[in-house]
Amino acid sequence: MGKAYLVLMGILLCSKLYESASNSLWRWKCNQSAGACTRVSGDVDATLYPSLETCRLVCGTAGGLWPQPTVGTVLSDGLFQFSLSSLKFEFASEDNDVTTYLKEIADLFNKTLSSISASNCSNTDNTVTISIVVLTNNMDLNWKTDEGYNLEILTAGKENSVKISANTIFGARHALETVSQLIELFSNNNGEVCHVIVDEAKISDAPNYNHRGLLLDTARNFLSISSIKKHVDGMAHSKLNVLHWHITDSQSFPLELPTLPNMTKYGAYSDSKIYHPTDIAELISYAKLRGVRIIIEIDAPSHAGNGWQWGPDAGLGDLSVCINQQPWRSFCIQPPCGQLNPVNSNLYKVLKDLYSDVINMLPKGEVFHMGGDEVYIPCWNSTPEIIAYLGDKPRTTETFLDLWSDYQAQALEAFDSAVGNTNTPIILWTSHLTEVSVIEKYLSKTRYVIQTWVPAADTLPQNLLDLGYQIIASTKDTWYLDHGFWGNTVYHNWRVVYNNKIPTASGTLGGEVCMWGELVDDSSVESRVWPRAAAAAERLWSNPKTNADQAERRFYRHRERLVSRGINAEALTPRWCYQNEGEC
Amino acid sequence: MGKAYLVLMGILLCSKLYESASNSLWRWKCNQSAGACTRVSGDVDATLYPSLETCRLVCGTAGGLWPQPTVGTVLSDGLFQFSLSSLKFEFASEDNDVTTYLKEIADLFNKTLSSISASNCSNTDNTVTISIVVLTNNMDLNWKTDEGYNLEILTAGKENSVKISANTIFGARHALETVSQLIELFSNNNGEVCHVIVDEAKISDAPNYNHRGLLLDTARNFLSISSIKKHVDGMAHSKLNVLHWHITDSQSFPLELPTLPNMTKYGAYSDSKIYHPTDIAELISYAKLRGVRIIIEIDAPSHAGNGWQWGPDAGLGDLSVCINQQPWRSFCIQPPCGQLNPVNSNLYKVLKDLYSDVINMLPKGEVFHMGGDEVYIPCWNSTPEIIAYLGDKPRTTETFLDLWSDYQAQALEAFDSAVGNTNTPIILWTSHLTEVSVIEKYLSKTRYVIQTWVPAADTLPQNLLDLGYQIIASTKDTWYLDHGFWGNTVYHNWRVVYNNKIPTASGTLGGEVCMWGELVDDSSVESRVWPRAAAAAERLWSNPKTNADQAERRFYRHRERLVSRGINAEALTPRWCYQNEGEC
Repeated sequence: MGKAYLVLMGILLCSKLYESASNSLWRWKCNQSAGACTRVSGDVDATLYPSLETCRLVCGTAGGLWPQPTVGTVLSDGLFQFSLSSLKFEFASEDNDVTTYLKEIADLFNKTLSSISASNCSNTDNTVTISIVVLTNNMDLNWKTDEGYNLEILTAGKENSVKISANTIFGARHALETVSQLIELFSNNNGEVCHVIVDEAKISDAPNYNHRGLLLDTARNFLSISSIKKHVDGMAHSKLNVLHWHITDSQSFPLELPTLPNMTKYGAYSDSKIYHPTDIAELISYAKLRGVRIIIEIDAPSHAGNGWQWGPDAGLGDLSVCINQQPWRSFCIQPPCGQLNPVNSNLYKVLKDLYSDVINMLPKGEVFHMGGDEVYIPCWNSTPEIIAYLGDKPRTTETFLDLWSDYQAQALEAFDSAVGNTNTPIILWTSHLTEVSVIEKYLSKTRYVIQTWVPAADTLPQNLLDLGYQIIASTKDTWYLDHGFWGNTVYHNWRVVYNNKIPTASGTLGGEVCMWGELVDDSSVESRVWPRAAAAAERLWSNPKTNADQAERRFYRHRERLVSRGINAEALTPRWCYQNEGEC
Repeated sequence: MGKAYLVLMGILLCSKLYESASNSLWRWKCNQSAGACTRVSGDVDATLYPSLETCRLVCGTAGGLWPQPTVGTVLSDGLFQFSLSSLKFEFASEDNDVTTYLKEIADLFNKTLSSISASNCSNTDNTVTISIVVLTNNMDLNWKTDEGYNLEILTAGKENSVKISANTIFGARHALETVSQLIELFSNNNGEVCHVIVDEAKISDAPNYNHRGLLLDTARNFLSISSIKKHVDGMAHSKLNVLHWHITDSQSFPLELPTLPNMTKYGAYSDSKIYHPTDIAELISYAKLRGVRIIIEIDAPSHAGNGWQWGPDAGLGDLSVCINQQPWRSFCIQPPCGQLNPVNSNLYKVLKDLYSDVINMLPKGEVFHMGGDEVYIPCWNSTPEIIAYLGDKPRTTETFLDLWSDYQAQALEAFDSAVGNTNTPIILWTSHLTEVSVIEKYLSKTRYVIQTWVPAADTLPQNLLDLGYQIIASTKDTWYLDHGFWGNTVYHNWRVVYNNKIPTASGTLGGEVCMWGELVDDSSVESRVWPRAAAAAERLWSNPKTNADQAERRFYRHRERLVSRGINAEALTPRWCYQNEGEC
């Protein structure tokens, strides 16, 4: 497919575009070498587009695609007009499950396009056929899933064909996401609104990292299932693939456990602020259809208070200590306090039940996040039961780290006993246990993946990689989306998020942006996360050598796309700057 | 009304409350001396409330009221249960317009209460009667309007009566807002959800400042009418009374002017991003019913570019200069550039038409905001037409200030000519023209009100007061709601907003929090403004000597109230801290 030919096609079709532009004063001109769409007042010129959105489809190497494809991208600058009613799908798979999945993502694709509502388009002579070939029957989404795809668009006369091939359904899903970004609305000269698709394209694409995540915290403040679904939508549109669900913390325990009903009885904020197992199942299936897996974190032994009060009444003793204790500054880092009681053997029986209940909600073999951050020694060191247990041992930091690692070993044993094998990967946050000098003593590198939450300048992630650990990076001073609203933290705008680079060594599974929940709930969480999480999405998918300045036009477009797809992504710039690329 | 009696009543009724509490583990206890509602697990105790919300209604001097009343507040700690269907209104006014207004605000009141949905309440024996007396027929909302009110609630057997008296309909409206804050939902022992109202209360209230404003900027990014209405709702619930509408700027001109259709043709972002005169009329009436007046700002001579391009084509020459000029840093403070052309006499004819059109949309005599900030001399000083006009004059700062003040004088003349008198108050932002050393030369203190936008430490507001000017304070480093997301600015949390004190001299009409629009549009503007604007509302209404720490419990409650009334106010704290007053 020669570029000269494409340009010719482009001019040909663009001249048709101009005729059919609306009555507005403005047109857009693509300067291909600068990759910029410039707003001009409407002189007759065959190279003009009727809207910024149609110009952006084809202007610059990656047009309006987000994240930018990694292996190769060729886009024509011509557009093909069609009606949604004349778009059809073809699937080539012998496998029923695969075909069912493909039908469902095709339905979602149609729904997404219908939501950017074309009205009364009568052009049904032009047809678009999307054919999808999936080469394996693998339905699992994990760190080894091949999410790559190839995509080709060709136009012959009145027939536009989109050919997708991928090794897995997830690659095919990403391809459809890309196709949806090659389509825009278009007002034609009959006063109708139709869709247009880029008429020729060839894209080969695969992610740089297999773990591309967003952390949501539903313990500081509850998030409704419908709010969480909105985030999954945004992730799907940006090709993020892991929702890390920090579901409990010392403030609340909103996860209903069939075996342990006391956890929500004591720990939920109210009867309406509970996640039932049916909610979890529904969400997991909702997310899978959108290329997203859900990893559950039950943070422990610290960050565990409310929900755990019922031990004494049940004759099990204190399962957690320092719960809601005051003055909190003496017993924890953030109120309310609460830290599991590692010396109560009943705790591990309860943990086994807890893990069992959670595992039953998850796909077989799914990894599990055990938290493990911010154990606060003064709590344990002021608890008589623990002091008695330690007996003559000196109550030094090392003694308490040993106690903590004992807890971790017994918790892991409880987990393994619940799951019935010893090979589920476990994720832990960096902590005193993961310091380079001690981690090999405490945590097996074949069993634990370490999630780092240190500033960009900290060498810990690289040091852990050097020791042979696998890591997930959540760079604290760039990817913590709660910053800027408390203490001395500063807000990380999308450029800071985008420019954050994480280690490229193969032990780096990927990274996560973190939406800690102290200061967000349903009212504002959507615009706090979006579109900034999408900036991290391109870093994790494409990991370009360039920085935010080079991504600005596509990112501005992607923000508008998220909004048009129902996500309250916050504004990035005055609209004039969006409409006048490169002028601000 | 003796407090002892009230307490007795309270205990009596509270014991009934306890019996009818829901099955939840938790109850709330009011510690009246600390003014705190404490969560306790449900032992039988006659002084417990079934929810934080019912406890907060009556706990502490001002219960859950926001803003706190100024003259006097006495609240019983007893509650009276009723069904909305047995609530009725009585109005005492001979005036039809007054009665119509009262009926409409009564409807709104009912609508607000219905939105916190009580279900299947069968208690219709208990009745609530709200009677409203308005002593004048004055329907105008301006800087002299008496917004005060008196409110008394009494209970006799099955009859609860709420007596409101006020000098104006606006005082009566505020009183109803207060009554709505003395009502909560309540789950009774029949499995029904009813409303409860504080059974005895006596409140006397009036604002400290007559200008209590929120600035919205619809030029950097367009805000839909429905979004603006949400802000008006939030203002009504918080007793703010001025929506300052920064409707145009250099980026866009979204206000349709019947006489000057080119302004939106050139200046609107799109056909759907235009405010039509019917929209303005509808909004003004919507706002008035909610105790809010709308003040329109057409910023000039700077901050005026897009929309003004049509002069040359119409044979009027350049009405604005430096429009969208690059490199923008040489011609303005923020792109795109644009500054009215003071030496083009046609400009003043156009301004007269513009003012005429705007005045026609406003209530008779409404004040007008002429902007007047950030004139950037290098623009004028690089414009050949202006340089030629100045001729031999030295092109010093003073020369350009004189030119600017000439512009201002002619603009005022155009305005007065359009309105037909010379006494409409004009508001201007502080600028080089308003410096203490020159303001008396340039701006009449009987005609202009100065809106200051300097940091809290700046003495300018007090200096202008000392000179005899009236001011409106928009303290830049506390009340600019856009800060924290760009440059070196920091986010002002609600405590900073609340703690900002403005001059108390009588020349201080009041203040405004400012939501500049570069980085917000419909997607996030609601949670960016709320509940922080409500923190300023109490500062402007009550101006308490105390600070945010003393207001925390009521403010947390008010944030929840805003959310329950449909406003996406952002979260202030983990919900645990809301449910456990004073523990975080």
